[in-house]
Amino acid sequence: MNRKELIKQIFNKKSFLCVGLDTDIAKIPKHLLEYEDPIFSFNKEIIDFTAPYCIAYKPNLAFYESCGVGGMLSFVKTIRYLKDNYTNHFVIADAKRGDIGNTSKMYARSFFEKMDVDALTIAPYMGEDSVSPFLQYSNKWVILLALTSNIGSNDFQLLENKSGGRLFESVLSKSQKWGTEENLMYVVGATQPELIKDVRTIVPNHFLLVPGVGAQGGSLTEVCKYGLNNDCGLIVNSSRNIIYANNTEFFAEEAAHKAQALQHEMSIILNSIL
Amino acid sequence: MNRKELIKQIFNKKSFLCVGLDTDIAKIPKHLLEYEDPIFSFNKEIIDFTAPYCIAYKPNLAFYESCGVGGMLSFVKTIRYLKDNYTNHFVIADAKRGDIGNTSKMYARSFFEKMDVDALTIAPYMGEDSVSPFLQYSNKWVILLALTSNIGSNDFQLLENKSGGRLFESVLSKSQKWGTEENLMYVVGATQPELIKDVRTIVPNHFLLVPGVGAQGGSLTEVCKYGLNNDCGLIVNSSRNIIYANNTEFFAEEAAHKAQALQHEMSIILNSIL
Repeated sequence: MNRKELIKQIFNKKSFLCVGLDTDIAKIPKHLLEYEDPIFSFNKEIIDFTAPYCIAYKPNLAFYESCGVGGMLSFVKTIRYLKDNYTNHFVIADAKRGDIGNTSKMYARSFFEKMDVDALTIAPYMGEDSVSPFLQYSNKWVILLALTSNIGSNDFQLLENKSGGRLFESVLSKSQKWGTEENLMYVVGATQPELIKDVRTIVPNHFLLVPGVGAQGGSLTEVCKYGLNNDCGLIVNSSRNIIYANNTEFFAEEAAHKAQALQHEMSIILNSIL
Repeated sequence: MNRKELIKQIFNKKSFLCVGLDTDIAKIPKHLLEYEDPIFSFNKEIIDFTAPYCIAYKPNLAFYESCGVGGMLSFVKTIRYLKDNYTNHFVIADAKRGDIGNTSKMYARSFFEKMDVDALTIAPYMGEDSVSPFLQYSNKWVILLALTSNIGSNDFQLLENKSGGRLFESVLSKSQKWGTEENLMYVVGATQPELIKDVRTIVPNHFLLVPGVGAQGGSLTEVCKYGLNNDCGLIVNSSRNIIYANNTEFFAEEAAHKAQALQHEMSIILNSIL
C-alpha cells in the first residue's frame, strides 16, 4: 500500500487506529483452546469484528515465535487471512529486525516477498546497511524505531550527542538520506508525548507509528496535539486494551466496542483538520 | 553452560572458534536439495565434521526465517541436534532481538526454556527493560550488540556523547549494571580491531563474541592482540569461510579443514597466555 492509498483509507474510515495482534495463548478466552489453532481462531474473530474501525493490524512476532513453529504457522495464517480478505488494511509485521546487509536482505525477502506484509519494524542500531535492503521494494515500508514507549527508551535513545541533539534525533536525521516519506515511517511512543513535538521538527511529514496508548498509559489527545499533520501522519496502535477487553465468548464483540470508541475519538480529531 | 565450563572447554580444546551456521539454501551443495530437509542435513554434516575444532555454534535466525515455517523447523532441529549430541558446545541463537519488557519475556521463554540455547544476541536500542528479562535465567547468556562488524556501525554506534565516550561505550558501561561477567557478553566486530582496545578498558573480563573474521575482512591476530584476556575472553565466529569452503559432496570435510586451520592458529595464541 502506498502513502496516497493509506491516507485515503484514513480519511474514508475516519480512523488511524492500528489493532496490535499481540496474541498470547495464556490470555485468550478458554473456549478457544479447543480449536485446532487457538491463536489464529482468536485473531480471525478479532479481525472480523474490529476491521470496520481500524486501518491497520500489527501482529508482534515475539508472541508467535514464543509458541515455536506452531506459533509461526499461526502468524503466517493471520497475515494470509488479512491479505486475502482485508486488502484495504495496512499490515505491519512488528519484528524489530536489523542485521548486517546480507542478512537483512534475507529478512526483506521473507517478509516482503513471501509474506507480502506492507511494513516491517526495524531496529536502527546497526545503521544504514542493515536498513537499506528493506527500502528496495516499491509500496513496502520500513518503520524504524526512533523513540520507543518503554522505560528503557531513556537509556540510550535520549543520550545527548556531542554535536547536539539526542540519539533518537540522530536516527531521524540520518535515516532521511536512506528513505523517503513514501517508504519510511518511525516508531514514536505515546508515553512521552512532548517529545513528539521534537520529532515533528525533524520529520514534519513522515508517518509515525505510535504504540503505548492505553495499557502503557499514553493519551490519544496528547499524541495528536503534537503529532498530527495535514495528512494525519499518525497510525496509533492499541493492543491489550482492545484484544483482551473481555475473555468470554463475547471477546470479539467487546474488542469491537473498544476499537469503535477509539475510532470515534479519532473521527472527531480528523474532522478538525479537514 | 556457565563461565567456568566455557573457559574449560576453550583450554581443553585449544579453540575459541564459533562456527556460524548461516545456512542459505541457495548456497549449499546441490545434491542436498534431494534430502527431505536440506538445511538441517547440511548443518548436521557441518556440525559432525567441525565439532572437534570449535567450542560454539551460532545459527543466525534470519537465514532460517527467510525460508518460512519450514526454515524455522530446520532451525529447531539443528538446536535439538546440538543439545542432544554435543553437550560440551556452547549454542548461540543469533537473533538480535529486543522489544518492550513483556515481549522480551516471551522471547526469553521461547529461546531459553523451549529451545534451551545457551545464549541469545540482543539489540540494545530499547534499553534495560528490553534486556533484563533475558538475564533472569541461570547459566544462560545475553550477548548484547555493542560494536558490530558492518559499515553501518559507524552511523550510530560511534556517535560521541556530550558527556564523553561513544554510543557503543555507553552500551558497555550502562549494561554493566544489568548483568555480570557470568551472564553477559558483547558482540564486538573484528573489522575495527583497534576499537577492541577501547572495549577492553570498559569490560576487561567479559567475554566478547567477535564476528567478521574471514569473509568480512577481520584478522584473528589483530583481534587477539587487543581482545585476549587471561581467561581467553573471546569467542571468534567464522561462517561463510568455513561452511561454504566447498560445494561438492566433500563440503563438510573441507569445512573441517578450514575450522582446523583456525583452531591451529588459536592453539598457538592460547599457549602464549598459559
